[in-house]
Parts: sequence; C-alpha cells; structure tokens
Amino acid sequence: MTPMGSGGEPDIDGERLLRRLRELSAFGRTAEGGITRPGFSEAGRQADAFLIDQARRANLHAEVDAAGNVLFGRAAIDRTRPALLLGSHLDTVVNGGWLDGAYGVVSALEVVQVLAERHIDLDCDVVAIAFANEEGALFPQAFWGSMVAAGLLGSLPGPPADHEGRPLAPALALAGGDLDALPSAVWPPPSVRGYLELHIEQGPILDAGPERIGIVDAITGRAVLAVDLIGEAAHAGTTPLNARADALLGAAHLVIATRELAAQGLCHVASVGHLQVEPNSANTLAGHARLLVDLRDADAARLTKAEDTVRDQAGSIAARLGLGVRCRRMVRSEPAAMDAGIRRHIAGSAAALGLAARVMSSGAGHDAQIMAGITPTGMIFVPSIGGVSHVPQEDTAPADLLAGARVLLGATLRLLACPDRRNGYRP
Amino acid sequence: MTPMGSGGEPDIDGERLLRRLRELSAFGRTAEGGITRPGFSEAGRQADAFLIDQARRANLHAEVDAAGNVLFGRAAIDRTRPALLLGSHLDTVVNGGWLDGAYGVVSALEVVQVLAERHIDLDCDVVAIAFANEEGALFPQAFWGSMVAAGLLGSLPGPPADHEGRPLAPALALAGGDLDALPSAVWPPPSVRGYLELHIEQGPILDAGPERIGIVDAITGRAVLAVDLIGEAAHAGTTPLNARADALLGAAHLVIATRELAAQGLCHVASVGHLQVEPNSANTLAGHARLLVDLRDADAARLTKAEDTVRDQAGSIAARLGLGVRCRRMVRSEPAAMDAGIRRHIAGSAAALGLAARVMSSGAGHDAQIMAGITPTGMIFVPSIGGVSHVPQEDTAPADLLAGARVLLGATLRLLACPDRRNGYRP
Repeated sequence: MTPMGSGGEPDIDGERLLRRLRELSAFGRTAEGGITRPGFSEAGRQADAFLIDQARRANLHAEVDAAGNVLFGRAAIDRTRPALLLGSHLDTVVNGGWLDGAYGVVSALEVVQVLAERHIDLDCDVVAIAFANEEGALFPQAFWGSMVAAGLLGSLPGPPADHEGRPLAPALALAGGDLDALPSAVWPPPSVRGYLELHIEQGPILDAGPERIGIVDAITGRAVLAVDLIGEAAHAGTTPLNARADALLGAAHLVIATRELAAQGLCHVASVGHLQVEPNSANTLAGHARLLVDLRDADAARLTKAEDTVRDQAGSIAARLGLGVRCRRMVRSEPAAMDAGIRRHIAGSAAALGLAARVMSSGAGHDAQIMAGITPTGMIFVPSIGGVSHVPQEDTAPADLLAGARVLLGATLRLLACPDRRNGYRP
Repeated sequence: MTPMGSGGEPDIDGERLLRRLRELSAFGRTAEGGITRPGFSEAGRQADAFLIDQARRANLHAEVDAAGNVLFGRAAIDRTRPALLLGSHLDTVVNGGWLDGAYGVVSALEVVQVLAERHIDLDCDVVAIAFANEEGALFPQAFWGSMVAAGLLGSLPGPPADHEGRPLAPALALAGGDLDALPSAVWPPPSVRGYLELHIEQGPILDAGPERIGIVDAITGRAVLAVDLIGEAAHAGTTPLNARADALLGAAHLVIATRELAAQGLCHVASVGHLQVEPNSANTLAGHARLLVDLRDADAARLTKAEDTVRDQAGSIAARLGLGVRCRRMVRSEPAAMDAGIRRHIAGSAAALGLAARVMSSGAGHDAQIMAGITPTGMIFVPSIGGVSHVPQEDTAPADLLAGARVLLGATLRLLACPDRRNGYRP
C-alpha cells in the first residue's frame, strides 16, 4: 500500500491556506500592523477558537489538552496509537509578525485536512498541534506547550506566573487547559513516530539565495549571560581619567569582545542586544551597566567554551578598569540535531516538487528543539523577506508559503510510506 | 584706610556657618538622605525664605530680583554703586548633596554679615547672591539667574517652560520674580568690581592631596554631542555577522573612541555616561543607539577640535558597520579663565591663614563662568570627600568648610584693600 487516495496526487489547497493565515492575523493586530498575541491572552484564545472552528467545519476533530495545546486530527486523539506530529505555535511576541508560528500550524492543519479529504489510508495518526506559549511573551515559560507534550517540563518550582506575578492557572483554564492535569497532555515517546515543523527562516539566508526551501540540520543551542559591571557613578567633568571606574566603558569593551568571539569562529553568533546603564546621565559616569550576552552554537561543548570565554573576558576587562563584575547564566538551551532520515524525506519531497533546497541550521529556537528530545524531528524553512521577523514587516512571498506547505505534505507522505515506519524513522 | 574694623582681625563665625548649612539641608531632603531642591520648586522657595529670614534677623537687607535671585547686602541694593559680588546657588539636582551651591551662598552671606558686624568701612558694596536655577533640574534653563544678572540671557526663543511644558512665569512669580521685568535684574558691568565664588570641588583631586584650598585658574568649556546610530533591528540568533547593522556595536566603538580622545591628551576629559538602546532585548540586535558624548576642555579651540573628532569617528564607525549616523550639538559652553589678580588675592588669603593651596581647573560648570563674561572673577575650591558630588553622600570635613569661608573673607578684604580697586581688579 502506498499512502495515496483517490483523485491523483494529493495537494494542499493554497487558497484555503492563505485565507486562514490572513484571517488568523486579525487576532491581536496592532496599530503598527503587527501582531501582539501572547500565549494565554484574549487574542490567543480567539486565534485558538478560530482554528478549532475551521477544523470542525471540515469535519476534523479538535481538542485542547491540559497544557493549552490545540490538537487537530481525523478522530479523537488517542495517545496510545502511533502518531506523526506536525506543528508549531500560534502565540507571538509583542508587535511581532503574522507568520512566525502561525504558518506552521495552519500548514499542519492543512496537511491533516488534505489527508482526510483524500481518504488516504494510514496506519499512523497524523496530528496537527498548536503548541501553547512558545514565545513566552506574557507568561515567561517559553516552549511551555512542547515541554509538557514531550514530558520534559519537570517539576515546577512553584505556581507559574506572568511577568507581573499573575498566576498561570486561571489563564490556562480560560484557554481550556488544566494546570493540575498536565500529565494527561504528555505523549508517551513510543507512540510518537516523529515530529515535523514548517517555519519561516527568520533570517536573511534563503531570501538572499536561489533556494526556496531550507532543510534544518540543527537548531543551535543558546546561552544568555547577564553580566553586571559595577563602577562608581562620578561627575563626568571633575573626575580625572585615572580616578574613574566607568561601568559603561567596561560594557563597551565587552560588547566588542563578544562580537570578536563570533568573528574569530569560536561561536556561531554572539551578540549583545540589551544594555542598561545607571544613572544614564550625560554628566555622570556610569556606576552600573548590565549586559545580556547572547551566544548560539550547534555544538554544546563550543557553547560552553564560549560562555567561559565571556566570563573570562568580563573578568579581565573589569580588573583592568577597576570594576566589580558578576555573571549569571539566564538561559541555556541545548543544541538539537534534526533526524537524518527525516531530512532525506524533506529533501526528496522538495526535489519531487522541483524546489531547490539547502541544508542550514536554525539560529532561533523552536518547539522542534524540545520534541527532538523524544522523537526523530525535522524542520522545513521558507524565506523571510529581508530576513526580518518578530516585527510587523515580517513576510514571505505567497508562492514560498505554498511551496513550504507542499514540502510538508510531501515529507509527511514519504515518512508514512517509508518501509521501516513501524519502527520509527531513525536511519 | 584698610578695610579693618574694631576688635582685631575679622573672622567668620564657624558655628553659625555650619548651623545654617545644616538647617538649609532640611529643605528638599529625600528618603535617601540627599536633597531634591530644583530651582523654582516649593523646596527652593523654602530655602530662599530661610536665608532671607536669617539675614533680616541679622539686620541685613535681603531682596529678590526679577530673575528670582536672592540678594543680601548691608543696605538696599543699588546697581549704580560699585559692588563686589559673592555668590553661588541654592538649587540642587535630583537627590543631590547638601553643599553644592548652598556652601557658597551661606559663606557669602557670612562674609557680608561679618563685614557689617565689624562695621568695616568700605567704598564698595559687598553683595551676596543666591543665583536662581544654576542646575536646571526642573526648568532646563541652567545658569538662569547668573545669565540674567550678567545681562547675557539674550532674547528668549519663547516662554520658558519646564521639562513637562509647565511655564516658568508663574513659578518665577511665586519665588518673588517677574518674567516681564528681567532687565531690572541686570548688573551694569561698570558697577561690578568682581565676582567671587566658593564651592566644593566635586572631584577627587584636593581630597587625595595635601592641599585644602583649590585656586581655580579656568572653568573648562563643555560640549555635549548627541550621536544617533541607526542600524537594523534583527534576530540575534538568525542574522549572520555579515548581514548585521548592529547599532549597539557601533555605540561600543564610539564609547571607546571617546575615552581614547582624552587618554591621548586631545581633550581634558571625554566621557559617555548616557546610552539608550532600542529595542534593548537580548534576542534582538539593536536598531538604534543614542549616546551623549560629553567633552570638557579649558581651551575653546581644542574643544571644537574634539567635537570635530567625535563627529569624524562616529562617521567612520558608522560607515564601517553599515550604520546611519546623526550628530547634534546639545550643549556648548565656552571655557572661562579666572582673573589672575583675583587668583593672587585668593592665594594670599590662603597663605596668610597657613592653608596649603593648589591651582586647578574646574571640570564642572559654575555661575562663575557666566559672571566671568562681564567682570573679573575668581573661584575657591575645598575638598569633596571621596570626590563625590550630586549624590546624597556629598560631603566636606567641617574644618575644610571653615577654611574655605575664611579664604573667601580674606580674599574679599584683600580685593577691597587693593590700591587699584577703583578701576576693577584686572592685573
């Protein structure tokens, strides 16, 4: 049996896909034309309700699990049966774009719907998932939904709350979840055949090149160090150079040292995007500067080495300038390799569609990096116009949106047609 | 005739001086132990009223001019008679210290009072002035009172207002001034014999050395450039190094280049104390950075050259990193040389008191730099403990406070005893 139903090659309904994406972009729309739709917000609930309604009108099953994830399938979800999961997230950052996350969810639903409409007979469920709160814009528990689904959340240190201390439990309940029933949302790893996520690249690489499809080989790990440099606030006019302990001068040296780390090839990318200066007055030397140093690499050991190097350099800059220094690790997520077998199916799907593809890593984090902890996982990228994301200008050409969804459908069919499918898809 | 009255050498009343300073520090006292007493605030009016009351109890004359300056003399102020002016200001920055300004005013009043008590017969009035709004903390017209008194305010571009747009006129009226009568507050230069200001150093030099008295040779000029670096906000994880336009990286290079300017001796001091980053997120490269570059030098031409160098360096850094750049001059005050004759009288006064003194420049701005535009001017410094100022910890040892006031009295007597006093005190 090949997973092929009636009426020739199955194909996605491009008009439906684009319409749903456009309609979804109304929920959380900002004055600047962006989307503010944090996980567990009113706009987030509206977006969930819209897609659930779309699925039910198409005679698909939709349900919300205890974590607030929305699941779409041909029938009621049964976590004891083998399933291939396709997904992404519907939540956004503040004033973000219309495609980050939403594109992958709407495409996953489209694949489930096409398989149902074409009555393609499968011995494995295909479930589309909108993971809750990937971005963590309101409730800071980023990757919340995929962490719960993968059974990787661990025990909570206390009741989760948002940045202002409002508890998650009631917001989760409004979204249809249940903080006390999280274990019911866990997928037992043996029943998960794999996880596929389609996403915009969020960077400039595909947009600058001839390829329309990116095949992700790894999601880079990330470490964020908060570095506090403590100097002495003093009058900018009356304090001689040799009597200064200028925290901003130290910060400037560390910003440049961080860039050098990547420029010298010791870390894939290394950046400082956040710098807070106290008292931040033209007339007063800075008594305190706080930097967030963001490091990314696909190799865990290199990432750790880069963290150590930043700590060392912060220490030597501080010693040289007479500053105090304190480094704290704020974030550490491990690099996640994508499954080689799934990558071959994505490549085969793109090739069959005549789409040029390139292998690339993902510098941004995705639910896929969580799911890779329990199942063979793959990611498909499409170009981001101008390389921009998390801003109102975030966009992708319609042809590329359709191409990506077709590659997702094709890769799904190839995966399910794979002779060793009963044993998962590891090569 | 020598300016000497009955009862031996005149001397300041140290207990009275310190008591008035302590009592004055109650007006605008903050929870942190500092003083928030901006010009034309409620606390400022209380401070004025306190000193006016002190003067009148001592049978001195006190009045407020149209600019809100408080004047103290032996009799009603007559701007057509020759006068030696002694002064400073009573207003503070937000959460500033108890001595910056107040020390000079209380000491000037003390000198006027001692001369009156000792019936020292002078052919020149000695007037103590508390100049209004030197700091510009609430109403941004810094040096307001001395600019008006010196006749250097020029025509106002519009009705003066505070940072939130509230007009100065009613606040000035509450303080006893009159915006429509500013010309009445101008001192005709021919009648002003000189100006003397006693002040804490606000820097670490005297505190670190053996000398207790600083004789100021020049008040450095100041230029503040606002430099905007415009990059492109982009994802810190997905944007390759060669596709970045990182405004914070440019800012870091300019902070270091500014320091180098002073380290190489091209400018007395050069500092960046203010840096604002947008969007200021760990995950996003900065699309915009604004720096305030603060330059100080006692030589106007060198100061201008330093400004040009900062503009050039901002331009070349921006070009190298693919950034846009815009530089605007926010502040420019010219260096002011102190009068050589007055400096000799200060030195003579310190020597007669057995106080070691050193010549030094002032890196901070003072009303003296305005008054130097119309009359021979001198400044006396005393040590700031730890070199700190504009903070609650600002302090000076009582012995140093008394020594400074004695030098002010002595320099005043020497000035008025000077044979060429009828022709001013230029050497």
